[in-house]
Formats: sequence, structure tokens, C-alpha cells
Amino acid sequence: MHTLSLEQAAAIVDAALHKARQTDCAPMTVAVLDAGGHLVAFKREDDSGILRPQIAQAKAWGVLGMGAGGRALAQRASAAPAFFAALTDISQGRIAPVAGGVLIRDSEGRVIGAVGVSGDHPEKDEACAVYGIEGACLRADVG
Amino acid sequence: MHTLSLEQAAAIVDAALHKARQTDCAPMTVAVLDAGGHLVAFKREDDSGILRPQIAQAKAWGVLGMGAGGRALAQRASAAPAFFAALTDISQGRIAPVAGGVLIRDSEGRVIGAVGVSGDHPEKDEACAVYGIEGACLRADVG
Amino acid sequence: MHTLSLEQAAAIVDAALHKARQTDCAPMTVAVLDAGGHLVAFKREDDSGILRPQIAQAKAWGVLGMGAGGRALAQRASAAPAFFAALTDISQGRIAPVAGGVLIRDSEGRVIGAVGVSGDHPEKDEACAVYGIEGACLRADVG
Amino acid sequence: MHTLSLEQAAAIVDAALHKARQTDCAPMTVAVLDAGGHLVAFKREDDSGILRPQIAQAKAWGVLGMGAGGRALAQRASAAPAFFAALTDISQGRIAPVAGGVLIRDSEGRVIGAVGVSGDHPEKDEACAVYGIEGACLRADVG
Repeated sequence: MHTLSLEQAAAIVDAALHKARQTDCAPMTVAVLDAGGHLVAFKREDDSGILRPQIAQAKAWGVLGMGAGGRALAQRASAAPAFFAALTDISQGRIAPVAGGVLIRDSEGRVIGAVGVSGDHPEKDEACAVYGIEGACLRADVG
Repeated sequence: MHTLSLEQAAAIVDAALHKARQTDCAPMTVAVLDAGGHLVAFKREDDSGILRPQIAQAKAWGVLGMGAGGRALAQRASAAPAFFAALTDISQGRIAPVAGGVLIRDSEGRVIGAVGVSGDHPEKDEACAVYGIEGACLRADVG
Repeated sequence: MHTLSLEQAAAIVDAALHKARQTDCAPMTVAVLDAGGHLVAFKREDDSGILRPQIAQAKAWGVLGMGAGGRALAQRASAAPAFFAALTDISQGRIAPVAGGVLIRDSEGRVIGAVGVSGDHPEKDEACAVYGIEGACLRADVG
Repeated sequence: MHTLSLEQAAAIVDAALHKARQTDCAPMTVAVLDAGGHLVAFKREDDSGILRPQIAQAKAWGVLGMGAGGRALAQRASAAPAFFAALTDISQGRIAPVAGGVLIRDSEGRVIGAVGVSGDHPEKDEACAVYGIEGACLRADVG
């Protein structure tokens, strides 16, 4: 596992929320996990729903779990629904195959964590995640 | 999160059941949760089935979790079945994407809780939930 | 299973809360289950903690599960801690071996349900449960 | 339930970590939950263990669930071990009866959330939580 610092993770969260406010998103929740899938930094905006913490973390955990971005996972889930139904149980509810989960890569291309954003349409969620990662001078991989 | 009193919650339950009897519904179960998703008041009529407590609570919890009414969630679930299958696990079985879960808003529009009704057709369940909320002088948001 | 009506269950809840206010209890939660262990009526007073719904239901479920009152279960749990530790898992977290769970018997002595009260000291919780059951003209069995 | 804003929650996290660095704590994890027990803001310092997110959240959730601070819960757990063993299952592993979970009260004394800190000795964890809450001009209740 390669290292994502708290300083980087916190910068990603704040940049993602900055983008959310600039683009008039619904109230947003942002979670950043390290490469092991464990939470490093998190913020939920006022009036963002009570399932958003789990969804944001599941978007991030899922992309780490499968090694592909949330948009790619959504496509695979459409093509193989029974497998993805099994995966939700296999993972004990820790994956969400939908856009808004984005892998974080360092300058050498290694996965060092993932971001999950939940609150608005998946495409807008994903744009915030990408903006957050790039704002912290890291590489976003939407898969 | 804003406050729903027990007095208000109990009034919602009783009004919803009054509507159920007026409209010849099957035996009904009504659950009222606060904004954090925790049970405040609950009644299950004689001969209402033993899964109804969980269904009624899941209808209410789901609308709080996602910030949208049960009818809207049912439509989204049809459009994105894999994501909603994942959501049932992500939420540990606490959401039911079907009409009959209704957000409770106060006079300023803030979400202060949710009602879940289960026992008859989803549309009749929803009508009881709305009647209950309005009977307590609060705003029903079917989303 | 013998029958506990919603009318009786609701009367128990209201009488138990009446007793709680008369005896200056901390904010209280009261759950009434039928003989099958399924929720019939429930109220949680303002400012009663968010785990109280589960505790009150577990007090009631546990006495049904073991066929003995909560006070008796507490004594058995002290005498056989390993067995009761196993029981919490066996029951999937549905029992609470502590005073405040009371069996409801009909005039012929048959168990028709149980009450669980949580919020103050176990003895005060139990007094509210007993008062509630007797207020509904049924027999309380503290075990 | 009353409102804790993201702005307040984020200020609590940052102040708690400031205290942790000033007092040479081991790597720390800080979670702030709203009154409903849902995550609002969170940071885990570099090298803080992978179970810390769950522990910090369980410290905070437990004090909300029981309406008493973590230090008080630790004392009760010593006095009633069987009941607290049952509580861990009743709560599905969401409570940690140990110092470091602190209730957040507003100027009128109402519970608006809770902080959980994990990483060093419970007393040092608790001191960071209290410092964080007071740094955000709110009232800490160690219970």
C-alpha cells in the first residue's frame, strides 16, 4: 500500500466541496479512503441525507475493491447484474457501482486511495471527486 | 437536524390510522421516525403481518436516507436496479423504495422526520401517511 | 399465540408513560410486543436516547424468548455470564437481561406479549412497565 | 433533535487534533456525529490504525445512544458487564463504553451531537474531545 496523507485527503475533501458549491450541487457528502479502504477524511454538508455517509464510502470502497472507477462499475453491473448482486453481499454492502467513486493515483500511477462523492446526480458527484483529486495535485482515474 | 416531538409523532400515527379505517384499508402499520432515523411512535393494527414493522420503518428510513419520497425512490429503483440492489445492502436492509414513505417538513421546509405506512397498496399507504402528517399540521413531502 | 390487541398495547404504553411522568423518570421509551415478539405499540419521549428503541424492544423480546422476566434474566446472567454472552449472539442482539422487561399474561395466565421500558434505572423502568400492564387490566409477570 | 452544522463539526475536529499534537498524543482519529448518530466530519492522522474509524465513531454513537458520556458508560459497564455485553449486540457494535466519547450540547443544554476520539489513552482522547468542543464554542458533557 502506498501512502495518502491526511493532509492530501483533507485537501481533496475541501476542493470537492468547493466544486460542489460552484456548480450548485445538492447538499454533498465526500469521503476519502486510503489504499486499504479505510476512512481518512470526511465531510457531510448540512441537509445531506443520513444514508450519504455509507453511500459515499461505498462508492470509494467499491472502486478500490474492483480496481476500476465507479462509472466502469456501473456499466459492468448493467452487463452482469447477478454478479453485482452477489458482490454487494460478498462485500457486505461496501460497494456502490455508480459514478462518483474515483481512484486516486500518485505521479507514478500507483493507487493510493479513492474518493466517493454522493448527493447529486452521479455525473455531478464524479466531477466534484475529480476536481478534488486534481486540486490536491494527484491523478484522478474514473476508470 | 430539527425536532419532531412525541406529541406530534403520536398525532400522525393516530390520524394515519383514522384515514386507514375511513378508506377500508387492510390492517395497517404506521411508524414515525425523527430526522435521525430513530423510532418515535408506532402502532400496528390487529392482524397486520409480522414483517410490517420492518417494512414501515424501512419506508420511512429510506426517504430520510436519500432525501426523497418513497414514490420518487421507486422510480429511481426502476431506472437503476443495480444501484438500488446495492443500496439495500449498504443500508443494511433499512430502505424500502416504494410509495408509503413520506418526509415530514416543518413550516420552514426543514425535514424533521418521516412516516412509513405498510399494509395495503402503496398508493393507499401513502394517502394515509400524507393524511397523518397534515392532520398534525405539518407538511408532507412525497418527493 | 394468544391475542394482544392494539387497543390493549396502546393503553399499556400510555399508562407506563403516565407513571414515568408521575415518578419523575428520565425521558422514557416504551415498547409492547405480541406473543410472537413483534412490535405492536411504541412511544419514545423527547430526549430519550437513540439506542432506547432497541433496548426497550430487547428487554421485551428477551422475556418472551426465555419465558421469564427481566429481573430473573439479570440474575441468571450474573450466574452464567458465558451462556448469556452466547445468548446475545444466538438471539442476534435481541435480548437485554435486565429489569424493565415484563411478561403480559391474560386472565387465564397465558403469555400474550411483553413490555420493555428503558430510560431510567432498571427498577424504575420495571415499575412503569408493571403499572402499564395493570392499567390495561392485564397481569404483569416480572419473573 | 437540534442542529450541528458542518462548520461547527469541522472546527471541532481541527481543534481536537490541534490539542493532540500539543500534548504529544499517539496518531489520532476524530469523528463528529450529529444528534441522530450520523457522521458529519472526520479525520484520521497518518499511522492511526485501521480500526480507529470504527472505534471513534462507536465512542460517539454510544454516548448518544445512552445519553451519557463515555466515562460514565465505562463505569456502568464495570457494574453491569452482562448488560453491556448485550448492548454491544443490541447496538450492532455501534457502542464503545470508554472515555473519549463526549456529548456536544448547545447553549441551552440540548444534545446536538457527539465527538469520539481514539488513538491514545482514554483520558488523553477525552481531553482532545473536550478541547475540540470548547474550541467550537459549544458545551462538552463527559457525563
